[in-house]
Amino acid sequence: MSKERLIYLPLGGAGEIGMNTYVYGWGAPGKERLILADLGVTFPDMDSSPGVDLIVADIAWLAERADRIEAIFITHAHMDHVGAVGLLWDRLKAPIHARPFTGHHARVAMEENGHDPETVRIVSAWPEQIEAGPFKVGFAPISHSIPESSALIIDTPAGRIVHSGDFKLDETPLVGEPFEQDFWAGVGGGGVHALVCDSTNVFSPLPGRSEATVGPEIVKLVQDAPGMFVATTFASNVARVKTMAEAGIAAGRSVCLLGRAMRRMIEAAVLTGVVTDFPKTISPEEAEDIPRQNLMLIVTGSQGERRAASAALSRGKYLGLELTEGDTFLFSSKTIPGNERGVIRIMNALSEKGVDVVDDSSTLYHVSGHANRPDLERMHALLKPKMVVPMHGEHRHLREHCKLAASNGMASVLAVNGSMVDLTGDAPDIVEYIEAGRTYLDGNVMIGALDGVIRNRLRMAMNGHAIVSLIMEDDEMLGEPWVDLMGLPEQGSSKAPLVDVLEEDLSQLVGRAGRKLRGDDDDLEEEIRKAVRRTAQDEIGKKPEVTVVISRLS
Amino acid sequence: MSKERLIYLPLGGAGEIGMNTYVYGWGAPGKERLILADLGVTFPDMDSSPGVDLIVADIAWLAERADRIEAIFITHAHMDHVGAVGLLWDRLKAPIHARPFTGHHARVAMEENGHDPETVRIVSAWPEQIEAGPFKVGFAPISHSIPESSALIIDTPAGRIVHSGDFKLDETPLVGEPFEQDFWAGVGGGGVHALVCDSTNVFSPLPGRSEATVGPEIVKLVQDAPGMFVATTFASNVARVKTMAEAGIAAGRSVCLLGRAMRRMIEAAVLTGVVTDFPKTISPEEAEDIPRQNLMLIVTGSQGERRAASAALSRGKYLGLELTEGDTFLFSSKTIPGNERGVIRIMNALSEKGVDVVDDSSTLYHVSGHANRPDLERMHALLKPKMVVPMHGEHRHLREHCKLAASNGMASVLAVNGSMVDLTGDAPDIVEYIEAGRTYLDGNVMIGALDGVIRNRLRMAMNGHAIVSLIMEDDEMLGEPWVDLMGLPEQGSSKAPLVDVLEEDLSQLVGRAGRKLRGDDDDLEEEIRKAVRRTAQDEIGKKPEVTVVISRLS
Repeated sequence: MSKERLIYLPLGGAGEIGMNTYVYGWGAPGKERLILADLGVTFPDMDSSPGVDLIVADIAWLAERADRIEAIFITHAHMDHVGAVGLLWDRLKAPIHARPFTGHHARVAMEENGHDPETVRIVSAWPEQIEAGPFKVGFAPISHSIPESSALIIDTPAGRIVHSGDFKLDETPLVGEPFEQDFWAGVGGGGVHALVCDSTNVFSPLPGRSEATVGPEIVKLVQDAPGMFVATTFASNVARVKTMAEAGIAAGRSVCLLGRAMRRMIEAAVLTGVVTDFPKTISPEEAEDIPRQNLMLIVTGSQGERRAASAALSRGKYLGLELTEGDTFLFSSKTIPGNERGVIRIMNALSEKGVDVVDDSSTLYHVSGHANRPDLERMHALLKPKMVVPMHGEHRHLREHCKLAASNGMASVLAVNGSMVDLTGDAPDIVEYIEAGRTYLDGNVMIGALDGVIRNRLRMAMNGHAIVSLIMEDDEMLGEPWVDLMGLPEQGSSKAPLVDVLEEDLSQLVGRAGRKLRGDDDDLEEEIRKAVRRTAQDEIGKKPEVTVVISRLS
Repeated sequence: MSKERLIYLPLGGAGEIGMNTYVYGWGAPGKERLILADLGVTFPDMDSSPGVDLIVADIAWLAERADRIEAIFITHAHMDHVGAVGLLWDRLKAPIHARPFTGHHARVAMEENGHDPETVRIVSAWPEQIEAGPFKVGFAPISHSIPESSALIIDTPAGRIVHSGDFKLDETPLVGEPFEQDFWAGVGGGGVHALVCDSTNVFSPLPGRSEATVGPEIVKLVQDAPGMFVATTFASNVARVKTMAEAGIAAGRSVCLLGRAMRRMIEAAVLTGVVTDFPKTISPEEAEDIPRQNLMLIVTGSQGERRAASAALSRGKYLGLELTEGDTFLFSSKTIPGNERGVIRIMNALSEKGVDVVDDSSTLYHVSGHANRPDLERMHALLKPKMVVPMHGEHRHLREHCKLAASNGMASVLAVNGSMVDLTGDAPDIVEYIEAGRTYLDGNVMIGALDGVIRNRLRMAMNGHAIVSLIMEDDEMLGEPWVDLMGLPEQGSSKAPLVDVLEEDLSQLVGRAGRKLRGDDDDLEEEIRKAVRRTAQDEIGKKPEVTVVISRLS
């Protein structure tokens, strides 16, 4: 039997921001007992995944080895870490471990997908350790932009791994446990075996700022605002929401939370005890009766989401509340790349209402939840790992993080999704490439990213769709071809209706065709498709997608 | 007869960045003689205009009054100012005036669209003035990120208008005329009637930096680079391209321009005399033989365009050249909102090749071409306008610019596309709203943004497309319904093929239908459409677009 080994295999999150899905294993090659760290989603966009609802990692490799999975550990409740739990669990069927606030969200997700919420086991923070086959795993509190975020301390036969999760070094995070240098020095002891580490902010050159710096600035802004004050941030940033609510109260305003995610998140925080003193809020109905200069709304939709409260308020009246000249709207958030257009759309719609919009360009009203470059170096120095394995980042982030580790004399490896890394020895070593990829939740169906379904949607969106119907009887055409167009202009260069031009062309084509061609559906379809594309190119300068339906009678 | 008046009517650019199209008029209401300032395009995106090639202003109002148009003036050669000249000229048919470099581009555009390039008249800079009906128009050199950018000095019976075009206050622009304070104070004299003014950077709080600050930083970067050095910027930023080429030469490198737009732009600059001393460049073939540490490429594609040289180099070998470990790639450019994903894709592809990517996050390697807030105030102070009319900006920019003017005691007006403003008196006054909008160039057809063509493409992209074919004979179905799917998953919750489930359902539907329904195409289509959407919702959780083709025999 081969020597036992310690492996690390990212299936999501390594080579991208989002969709965090990491596997660790210990055992003889091919027989490793496995644990998972996080099971997250990423979000679709029109450019590459129109119509798709959510994107999760392709877990085919893992599902085939479900009997070897000991447990799933969720570091925190952001969707890109916990969002796929409900969608993928039935193919994994391992117990899920999380701290109370995170576990609450995991249980809701399980229930929504018809699974037993009790599969999620609520655990305490370190020093509690969960035994999972050859692993002992503990949740070490670390600061981030959501309560109860944890690094995983994974003790393995080859030594201790620290899986950082998402983190920052915040000694005054306001909600949740502060970063404690002494604690982490203790976790490191003489040096951990491997640090598998968040990389998203490796290009940010200055030390990260504390959540506590934001509050006083927001207080000033709220106090000076003449009309209604509206603020948006990620609902899950409970500390920020609390800071904003307190700023409102301090300025003599009643505070109303708008948006389902916002209310649910704060309820979960109160329910699980991560927040015990959230200021009193009022309902939208009550808010209607409050003079606008005494009212503050805290709303969902910081990323410009069309269905969130921000977008609704930018369009008009929402739950009886309407913005107007002299009101102020604060984006206490960073715009995630790709969401700029949606956010700008809302800003301009607010501008049209006479609302003053404040964004984070001054850097006063938002701080990041991730460790910047000097923070990463500080964590490296505290834990003294033999090796740094950069995770959670695009390729450029992982690469830069590797360079940073190397510059400080630590071994590292650039392991993107699908790279199986042997961590057993003193340096990491990629031993195998697993097929990794993405699976789309589309409506209620899971489809592979490469199945062609989405490719066809993109083609129809780019090129339009022409449908040709033809009835053949005894290899002769019955009547004329019929053309329907969708997503194509009605007429082109000849000024005649495009359907007429196409039908005329196809009529001639089939008329001229020999009996052999007329008798062969595949060949006839292909000729018709070519003719449609050729004629359309002449008429409208565009080659549509073509569906040909040949019906044969007798 | 009504009193003559001076009007301003933005048809593009006011309420957006791009698509600049502005109308001025003088005369009795409804009989004003008109001139145009700029005729630009904006660019499509997957979220709102998939498959579209270019977007121009809806000029229906103007085209109906083509006999009243005296002339078209183009301030500079950026596509969002000159790009629609060739596409829209045949509906306007007025002479076009531009300075040599801009005129060169306008002539190329006219020729490409089958119009006489001599329609574009090349004019000199101020003090030359072109008489255009009641207007006298001069091109006053002003700095921007392209050579020969000009403000228009428009003398009207109601006084002098300065139409700023895009501008910055750069006393050392390297290529083109520097900003000259004394000249502009002279143009202002005792105070101009109206300043119609660029607004894009009104939220940038610090004075703009000069183009001359970029060169020394790039020189350092190129000198320190160990391998091949590649730099990208907008091809039209001739000063930047020249700076980069000079940096390459200074570092002992041969310089090669890659990308058609890059070569064409520099050729035009040399041809029209705006650059007389562009460094010697080599061809891609010659570049193949140069050691990589002695080579510098200057390439197109700073916005992540899939077909540009940057994207090609990020994917692999391009014109014999290939990037590798140790090479450096500089984005000497800002990413325009909405283009982030494309740019990031290229950065990561370069990272995969081991290339070090430098972007403008340090702010050392790029400066904006637009006037920042303090620069706008300086221009206001120099020209002392009775009124400031903010143009070229989203609604929030125009609004902020109005507030800025008001804070300095000047009248202003927030006029978005379609607002006809009376500028005759001491303060601007919106007198009418014209229907403004967008027209899409799609292939070679112009379609209205609201024609439904694009809406249908977006629907197919979001929902997929189901095609149902049915043959009826004497109100009886012949054979079975036939279903084709495009952009939809093959199977849903029942695990049977979705087409089979749909065909079975439709077969029953038609079988059960009464004679009346079977005899009415519209009603039958509607019932089939509903049934397909209902069944698909059950099976796959999604309601597709449905095309029904009913063929009736006899």
